[in-house]
Formats: sequence, structure tokens, C-alpha cells
Amino acid sequence: MSTTCCNREEITPRYRVTVVGSGNWGSVAAKLIASNTVKLPIFHDEVRMWVFEEILPGGEKLSKAINQTNENVKYLPGIKLGKNVIADPDLENAVKEANMLVFVTPHQFVAGICKRLVGKIKPNTEAISLIKGMEVKTEGPCMISKLITDMLGINCCVLMGANIANEIAVEKFSEATIGYRQDKEFAQRWARLFCTPYFLVSVVQDVEGVELCGTLKNVVAIAAGLVDGMNMGNNTKAAIMRIGLREMRALSKLLFPSVRDSTFFESCGVADLITTCLGGRNRKVAEAFAKSDGKRSFDELEAELLGGQKLQGVSTAKEVYEILSHRGWQAVFPLFTTVHEICIGQLPSSAIVEYNRAH
Amino acid sequence: MSTTCCNREEITPRYRVTVVGSGNWGSVAAKLIASNTVKLPIFHDEVRMWVFEEILPGGEKLSKAINQTNENVKYLPGIKLGKNVIADPDLENAVKEANMLVFVTPHQFVAGICKRLVGKIKPNTEAISLIKGMEVKTEGPCMISKLITDMLGINCCVLMGANIANEIAVEKFSEATIGYRQDKEFAQRWARLFCTPYFLVSVVQDVEGVELCGTLKNVVAIAAGLVDGMNMGNNTKAAIMRIGLREMRALSKLLFPSVRDSTFFESCGVADLITTCLGGRNRKVAEAFAKSDGKRSFDELEAELLGGQKLQGVSTAKEVYEILSHRGWQAVFPLFTTVHEICIGQLPSSAIVEYNRAH
Repeated sequence: MSTTCCNREEITPRYRVTVVGSGNWGSVAAKLIASNTVKLPIFHDEVRMWVFEEILPGGEKLSKAINQTNENVKYLPGIKLGKNVIADPDLENAVKEANMLVFVTPHQFVAGICKRLVGKIKPNTEAISLIKGMEVKTEGPCMISKLITDMLGINCCVLMGANIANEIAVEKFSEATIGYRQDKEFAQRWARLFCTPYFLVSVVQDVEGVELCGTLKNVVAIAAGLVDGMNMGNNTKAAIMRIGLREMRALSKLLFPSVRDSTFFESCGVADLITTCLGGRNRKVAEAFAKSDGKRSFDELEAELLGGQKLQGVSTAKEVYEILSHRGWQAVFPLFTTVHEICIGQLPSSAIVEYNRAH
Repeated sequence: MSTTCCNREEITPRYRVTVVGSGNWGSVAAKLIASNTVKLPIFHDEVRMWVFEEILPGGEKLSKAINQTNENVKYLPGIKLGKNVIADPDLENAVKEANMLVFVTPHQFVAGICKRLVGKIKPNTEAISLIKGMEVKTEGPCMISKLITDMLGINCCVLMGANIANEIAVEKFSEATIGYRQDKEFAQRWARLFCTPYFLVSVVQDVEGVELCGTLKNVVAIAAGLVDGMNMGNNTKAAIMRIGLREMRALSKLLFPSVRDSTFFESCGVADLITTCLGGRNRKVAEAFAKSDGKRSFDELEAELLGGQKLQGVSTAKEVYEILSHRGWQAVFPLFTTVHEICIGQLPSSAIVEYNRAH
């Protein structure tokens, strides 16, 4: 195999991939990618993975442990990433040879990372963001893919979907959606990089639609959790999820007229919504909130139930509410509006099923 | 109130409603309708309900028991239907004054009922079918609404949605979708007849789309049950539900080009699919089938688990398969095809996540 690869390399330089981030989902992404780069001659075998360095309880560096064991012993223990995954704690060094960058960090770190990368990346580099939960500002959402494009001057696709990392890590069947802006050929190259027999990737020309699905679904998951907490049954839960999907679609299209209805039928849309509303931490904390009957706050329950992890749904609901009230759209989005009003204690949990005002 | 009503009646004859059927869902429908006919002057207060007569264990007739207690003691015990619901065991008598007929019986009885009603109904009568699970024949689906229209020469809408009857009976929030062919005004009148603060009804001009959603979702529920039986997790289940929804949409549009994508975002589409794939008997039996690892048949498990109730998903999968093979469409519908091949023992349950051939 290597002979063919080397021969090809002399003709066409192969794409080199760096994964920027090495948490749970980043490690699974590196595993998926590494299984393809060794097989497909258009990619260089080696996958570099930037690791935000940590010292493990035994005193060892996380990056060193990953390189010695081929496992992310902290964030994805027990799963071999592939010998061709090289952990690198030096961000600038990790990206310097790459022309395909996979961003998969907590969203609040993206701006700082991009700032450090300005002027440090190769020309014609392409990026993809796997980051769900970007910021929504009053004037509209500030999308992570846009932030990366603006700060680094490079094109950025997104990959979203019903992707619980630990299930993909053990190769359970799953799907994802890549959203791209213009260049379909590059989007298809990203799809080849991620696609495996157990991880199917489709490609749609709707970067904003795909990315907004990933964020707004967390608001719907809060609503679904409230329904669970009040034991309202599958009928009501399905109705709330459907109304939530309708509002996700309507808001996305109002904010970005290019957004397509068909995107919401993709993995990033209906499937991710289902996964998030069945499991997921937003659902879980909202369930506890409804059960507490207004006696405990989301902040308190988050601290108690999530062990340091953060909810996105409550803050996204607040940001969405700001957009809606700024534009006078509250009546058009009763579910989004009601979720926020319940979160801040202005309405009881039971208000989640009171939609007469919308009819 | 009655004064106003009577005054109006002298000017415009009010619509008179008969519910043809009195099972679990039929009784809930009668309750919903009866709560509106007493409030809305365009409808005559009385709701007649045709009861397929049965003798109760105590020797009493079911119809008599319903009229004495205002409860369907057999199929919806504990729920008051409204004093204005009159049970009538005589089919021809039950419909003779009506100009709005609500069909809600097991689908195999519809043809026989319609045969008895030919020439017995008032001119300009309108119908609505709440019957899910119509027959699919090789040349295409034979829809219940079409059967009613063809046999009785009357227009027929459909009402479908995420409607677990017992949850609506106790007034838990839910939604439904009415599909109509031409006459929007009449569809909206049906919506007024059913709509309550806890039961929201929307109206779409897509009778086939709405009706096909109600049937085809049962095939997807079999697939979801198989995934549950193999403990594949939420990711995989969401993916399978999404692929199922895509095939429901694609097949409906191939069979009836008038079918609209937007219908699948309604309660009859994504919401009913979610409810059915979370609970539901098709899901339950398929789960047991996958757990038995091919050792037990669907027939055997159905008899054991459903206590006389029948699965629709397995027979619908077979009928869908006949349509697909007749037209050479199997490769375009890998999920529908695979469900049937698993049901008949030709493929193992694990095949439900092997879709490489579709990509």
C-alpha cells in the first residue's frame, strides 16, 4: 500500500489533516478520520490532534499518554484511536503542515484559538467545525463557522448530526450531515474523510441551516424535559418536539433566507432532535426542574446533576428570546418564548403545553 | 345558550354529526366532538355514535350501558363522553339524520359498513376518516378515504396524528392533522369540530400524504423496535427513524406526486412517527423479535404479547415490499425492504443498520 501512496504523493500532494481539539467528540472524530486516511490515497496517513495539555493524576502528560497508548485515556478511555493519530500539545506546530483543519473544542475557546492561528496556517487551508452550541446574539446568531472564516480568512464547513460520541466510538450505526457554503467538491472530500460503514455522512448546501439545527435543538430539549418531568406522556412529548422543530425551521429561515426545509429532514435536524430529546443533559436537567415544581433553579440543578458540565439550552433560550423580543417575534415562536419564560421563573413548567395564543 | 342556538337553527340548519365506530379512539373522538357541539352553534348538540353491539359480562348491552352512564364502559372506562353522546346500535338509524360522518373503525370493516350505507345517507354528507392502517396493494395503496368516497359518493377528509387515545381522553396536550382534497372550508369545519385547548388541529391540502403517514410509520416502528431489541442506543434509533421518515416521504411522493414535503413536518408525520417509535405495539413486538435472535416468529410474539390485538407493521411492510418489487424500487427504499426481509426471516435483525448499498 505504501508504495502506491508514495508514488501518488510525488504526483499530487496529499491532504494533511489536523484535529483542533481532543475531548470526547474530538477523539472520536480523530478515530473516524484516522481509519480513512490510512485507506484513501488522497490523504496523508498521519492525523495530528492538538491536545490542550493536562497533567494526569499519575503525573504524566495527557499528550504523551495518548501517543504511548493510542488512547485518549482521559476523555475516551478504552478506545484505540489508530496509530496514525499523533497528539501534539503545541497548537501552532500541530496545524503548520495541515491544509484540512477540524475544529472540535468547546465553543467559548474558538475565538482565542483562531486568534493564535492568524498567520500560522497554510494558504488554501479548509476548515470544518463540529462545534454545536454557538453563540446567539441580539442582532442574530454569531455562528462558529463564520467566526472561523472571518478570523482566519478560510472557508469553513460544518458537520452536525445525531452523534453521541461514545456510541460512535464503539462503532454503533450513526449518521451526520455536512453543511457547505459554496464548494461542493471540498464538502465531498470532508465526507470521504469522515464516512465509514457505521457512520454515514451526507452533504447539503446549507451551512447556516445545519449549524442552527445543532444549537436550537437544545432549547427544544429543555421543553421535552419539562414534559417528562410532568409525566405528560409520549403524545405530548412528540407534539412538543414537532412544534420545536417547526420553530427551529421557521427561525432559521427568517434569520437566513437561504436555509432549506430539506435540511431539517437530515441527521442534523430531526434525528439530532430525537436523540437530544430522548437522552441528553438539557432534557435531564429540565426534567428535574419540572419535578421540583419551581422550588429549584436551573443553575442549582445543573451544578448538582452535571458534575461540572454545562447546559446550553437555558443560555440559548435566553439568547433566542433576545432575538425574538428585539424583532417582536415572540408570538410567532410560542415554544421558544415559553421555554425562556419558564427557565427564568416567570411561568410555571405547565405553561409548556399552553399554545392557544398561537392559534 | 339554547335560545341562541334555537334561533340560529331556524335560519341555518345545523350540522349533525355521527361517529361510526365506538372503540377506544372512537369514544375519545366522540368526547372531543361532543364538547364542541354544545358550544358551537353551527353544530347540533347531539352526537350520535354507532356502537357495534356487544353483550357485557353482566348481560347488559354495551349501547345501553353507554347511554346510562355516559361512559364506554368497555373501551374507555372512567371517562365521561358527554351527555349529548347517544349510542345507537342500529347503523342505518345512527347515520340517517347526519351530514357529517366520522369513520373510526378497524380498517377491515370499512368496506362492509359502506356497503350497508349506500343509499342510506343524506345528500351532501361529508365524511372524515380517523382510520390508520389502510391497505396497500401491489398496484398502489388502496386508501380508506378513497374507499369511502368511491363507495358512498361523498367527499372524505382524514385526521391523523400523534394521538394515543387514552392520553387525549385525560386531556393531555396533543395535536392532529386534517388532510383534505379540495374543500378547505369543510376541512376547517372539521377542525372546529375536533379542536380543543388540549387538542390542536391543523389543516393541510394533502389527503394522501396525511393518510400514508399514518400507515407507513408502522413499518418504521418495526425497525425502531429491532434497534431497541439489539440495544443499539439513541443515536442509531434516531438515525433509523430519520431514514424511515425519508422513505415514507419518498414513497408517498412517488405514489402520489401531489404529496407535499411539508406534510411530514405536521403531527401526522414526524410527531406520530416519534410517538409510535417510542411506545406502540409494533415497536414492542419487534423488540422481542430481535431479542429472540431469530428463534421466534412475529406471529408467535404477536399472539403472546398483544392479547388479541394485531400488528399492522408486519403486514404493511409486506404490502409495501410488493409495491417496491413490482416497480423495481427496492434499492431506493433499503429500510422498508430490509424490514420485510427481516420479518420473513430472510435477513437477521442486525441487517437493519446495514445501508451501504444505498450509498
